[in-house]
Amino acid sequence: MKKSLLALAVLAASGAAMAQSSVTLYGVADAGVTYANGEKNWSGVTSGNNLTSRLGFRGVEDLGGGLKANFVLEAGLNLDNGDGNSGYDISAATNGFAFKRQATVGLEGGFGEVRLGRELTAAYRATARYDVFGSVGIGQSYLWGNGNGIADGTVPEGTGAYATAKTTNQRVSNAVTYVSPNFSGFKGSVNYGFGEVAGANSDRQYLGAGLTYDNGPLSLGLGLERLSKEEATASGKITVWSLGGSYDLGVAKVLAGYRDSKAERVNGDDKTKGYMLGLTAPVGPGLVRASYNRYETTPAGGIKAKADQFALGYVYSLSKRTSVYGTYAYIKNKDNGKTWKLGGTNATLKDNGNQQGFQVGVSHSF
Amino acid sequence: MKKSLLALAVLAASGAAMAQSSVTLYGVADAGVTYANGEKNWSGVTSGNNLTSRLGFRGVEDLGGGLKANFVLEAGLNLDNGDGNSGYDISAATNGFAFKRQATVGLEGGFGEVRLGRELTAAYRATARYDVFGSVGIGQSYLWGNGNGIADGTVPEGTGAYATAKTTNQRVSNAVTYVSPNFSGFKGSVNYGFGEVAGANSDRQYLGAGLTYDNGPLSLGLGLERLSKEEATASGKITVWSLGGSYDLGVAKVLAGYRDSKAERVNGDDKTKGYMLGLTAPVGPGLVRASYNRYETTPAGGIKAKADQFALGYVYSLSKRTSVYGTYAYIKNKDNGKTWKLGGTNATLKDNGNQQGFQVGVSHSF
Amino acid sequence: MKKSLLALAVLAASGAAMAQSSVTLYGVADAGVTYANGEKNWSGVTSGNNLTSRLGFRGVEDLGGGLKANFVLEAGLNLDNGDGNSGYDISAATNGFAFKRQATVGLEGGFGEVRLGRELTAAYRATARYDVFGSVGIGQSYLWGNGNGIADGTVPEGTGAYATAKTTNQRVSNAVTYVSPNFSGFKGSVNYGFGEVAGANSDRQYLGAGLTYDNGPLSLGLGLERLSKEEATASGKITVWSLGGSYDLGVAKVLAGYRDSKAERVNGDDKTKGYMLGLTAPVGPGLVRASYNRYETTPAGGIKAKADQFALGYVYSLSKRTSVYGTYAYIKNKDNGKTWKLGGTNATLKDNGNQQGFQVGVSHSF
Repeated sequence: MKKSLLALAVLAASGAAMAQSSVTLYGVADAGVTYANGEKNWSGVTSGNNLTSRLGFRGVEDLGGGLKANFVLEAGLNLDNGDGNSGYDISAATNGFAFKRQATVGLEGGFGEVRLGRELTAAYRATARYDVFGSVGIGQSYLWGNGNGIADGTVPEGTGAYATAKTTNQRVSNAVTYVSPNFSGFKGSVNYGFGEVAGANSDRQYLGAGLTYDNGPLSLGLGLERLSKEEATASGKITVWSLGGSYDLGVAKVLAGYRDSKAERVNGDDKTKGYMLGLTAPVGPGLVRASYNRYETTPAGGIKAKADQFALGYVYSLSKRTSVYGTYAYIKNKDNGKTWKLGGTNATLKDNGNQQGFQVGVSHSF
Repeated sequence: MKKSLLALAVLAASGAAMAQSSVTLYGVADAGVTYANGEKNWSGVTSGNNLTSRLGFRGVEDLGGGLKANFVLEAGLNLDNGDGNSGYDISAATNGFAFKRQATVGLEGGFGEVRLGRELTAAYRATARYDVFGSVGIGQSYLWGNGNGIADGTVPEGTGAYATAKTTNQRVSNAVTYVSPNFSGFKGSVNYGFGEVAGANSDRQYLGAGLTYDNGPLSLGLGLERLSKEEATASGKITVWSLGGSYDLGVAKVLAGYRDSKAERVNGDDKTKGYMLGLTAPVGPGLVRASYNRYETTPAGGIKAKADQFALGYVYSLSKRTSVYGTYAYIKNKDNGKTWKLGGTNATLKDNGNQQGFQVGVSHSF
Repeated sequence: MKKSLLALAVLAASGAAMAQSSVTLYGVADAGVTYANGEKNWSGVTSGNNLTSRLGFRGVEDLGGGLKANFVLEAGLNLDNGDGNSGYDISAATNGFAFKRQATVGLEGGFGEVRLGRELTAAYRATARYDVFGSVGIGQSYLWGNGNGIADGTVPEGTGAYATAKTTNQRVSNAVTYVSPNFSGFKGSVNYGFGEVAGANSDRQYLGAGLTYDNGPLSLGLGLERLSKEEATASGKITVWSLGGSYDLGVAKVLAGYRDSKAERVNGDDKTKGYMLGLTAPVGPGLVRASYNRYETTPAGGIKAKADQFALGYVYSLSKRTSVYGTYAYIKNKDNGKTWKLGGTNATLKDNGNQQGFQVGVSHSF
């Protein structure tokens, strides 16, 4: 009986029609204690170190004839203080709860799937998945400019929110998304994001694509992105491409990624690139994760900054839904630079540009 | 078995008492692509074009003896970017998720129903229901001042939020609402909204009533509203009345509405009025909708502005809960005025005051 | 069958793993009409007068071997206007929905329970429970500085949010919490709250403990708190202790509480203390509640202010989940002071420092 109930998930009824529905309430509660050294050391309770803390609602309706309607509403949470994690600036006024992780309605069928709204870009989905630390916590890779101050602004929010959106360059708003069916392991996706600029011809602002190949132990991904122009500045277009792959050897899985972005500025190009090598191996009831990242950024007319990052962690599964984890990470900015620091911490870096940190926590999916 | 489960909706348990409950999670995910011409043309992904995107929680408890307790919490959503749609100003700081569509607790019985909190005004409910485009999308009627810049401020938010509330003059906060039982098709409702002004004798701020008659093919509605005074200005009271009706001929339904508002200002009265004619007809698996609106507004001491609006649309039902829709709308401001433009778009009007737009999208209720 | 369904609560499935879950959606919708006299009288619809209006999600997963994982996400609501009640400043920009009441993930077993995140302090939980009006409405005790302007800032929010957090000194963010098992009625809890100050050695900011004894008719509680230093000012540490107890005589229950706080300032100490006597008695299908509170506060280098507060109320239970209530309260600031006023109202006090108010409403748990 439990199985048939599972299919029902949450029973809900629409307003007048009292139609049947199948809505799933889901989420993650993940928090831990993080320590990072620096000019002054820093410690605190941090949210979403293994999986981003979130709360979501989603549903699928079978329309018959192979056609389905679906929706997703997913909001980020800061479990350390109860705030939402809207991707906006970190301040009391803007940390409310909002479905900034995903807000879409879609139709899927033999033709693939069309979705409207806000979601992760196809380009990000195609290659960020090779980060063994899942883009969160102190071990995360910063190739995708994940909130560490070198975001390259590939995905502005639209009307007036460009500066804000710089911190969330993994997602696109005001978008039409197409996802192809699976062709022998190949799958392609495209996002078209409207600029929606008031009083301007609102040309396309964002166009991106992801192509993936998944077949047995082999997985490959390619991401391509073009931002037509920056809204808030006189800057020109931004072009990004990324590549990644993994191979599962059974005893271990090896992963790699590369990303290259170029933003046209009045005095030249801002260039950022980097690569990532990763390894995961099942050990006991959990998973060992290790990664090496190399980052390089050259501001227009400026001097190149470089950094190396190493991370090692273990996720111990208490159940399919609950884990405890521990991660150690070390970052070394070259030439005493201070461009990169460990994710989610708030320490001021030491003069030599080195930082190390440790993180333990618990992650519970529901 | 499914049927008995349906009645359970969502099972939830209150804190200490572990009592049984019946909470329904419901909502709408609606998004489309909209184009509107203007001085510069505008296109974008827009939310809630056929039904307002929303997420809600509601429940009813049978207390025995014909008495029931109920609650409704309903929040608007901007599905295009994941923001909430709180009715506040459109900015990052204020677009969080909040139950601004409805937040009430009530008791109902033979005497009717008493609710406390925030909800649509009885006056709005009585007559806005004759808009064939349901007060949303580019085809919507602006008789009720729905966010197009000519809101007449009938329903301020209370304490200090008057300016803000001008954009949400369909709802009243801090209100006691009474809804009568149904007497042979007649039903009456009253909202009493407290001013809650700090340091002032908080007299009544809003008083409104709706009277409806629904019997077979005939439906009629009357709305009356009085705003005692504006809080943020030295202005006097605002008085509004509206009237509407529809008749279902079977092959088609004809609808009509009229609304008249007068706001006392230091230099005279702001006057706004308009009427609406609508038609719906079931065609194939969907519904054709057509409307004509006439708007007239005269600012205190100013010159009358007028506009005509035409809209035509089709809603194709994929299921009881899911539809795709297309709407065309045209608005013509007289004498090259620019007072009204198509709802939800962001284009600057052409000098001749004309605008046309088109909208296609998908609407999914859950 | 209903019983087995109850255990399932809300069925939800985690992302990839499609694991089973048991999430409970719960909440309270409570609103009433409040009148308070003053320099100018005040009346309005107020939220959460008997139980704080809220919406929450919580779940427990049995991990086997006596170990369980749990999470709680609980948000406050202003049912009068649909806003969230985030504990932040009262303004449109900050009243969004957020899980500021509780946001935790935890593991529990024979060792007790460890939780990470934001929650009520152990000290508050240990002794505030003796307030017969449950810390809400016009009858509430202000011993715990519940938003009436004399909060002593025991629980700052962390990074940059100190001023804000002063209004929420019942909860601690960025915290590690330990709750002991029950030892013959004794139970102890500790909160360790990180400062998480950017660019500073983030020493402990908050440390608090609660010790409770519950055995048959007797209940006792002790709360101890230490705030290391204020972040936003040059002030020194804050020290608080509180004590409370109750005895259930059957025909009635008597309750008492005392709280004493001291905040080091550059020119001396801010001192606040007070005590509370309460009585509840089951009468008919409801509960009579009565309380007397005495408050005293002496600002550093300033003059002592004092007040007496009396409150009397009745909660009539329509069911286990739904009640109607009425409360009368009177407060008398000594020496024409104006330090304290009735909770949740917005009246300016009369010159003699007296205020009385009355409140009726309905409270529905789901």
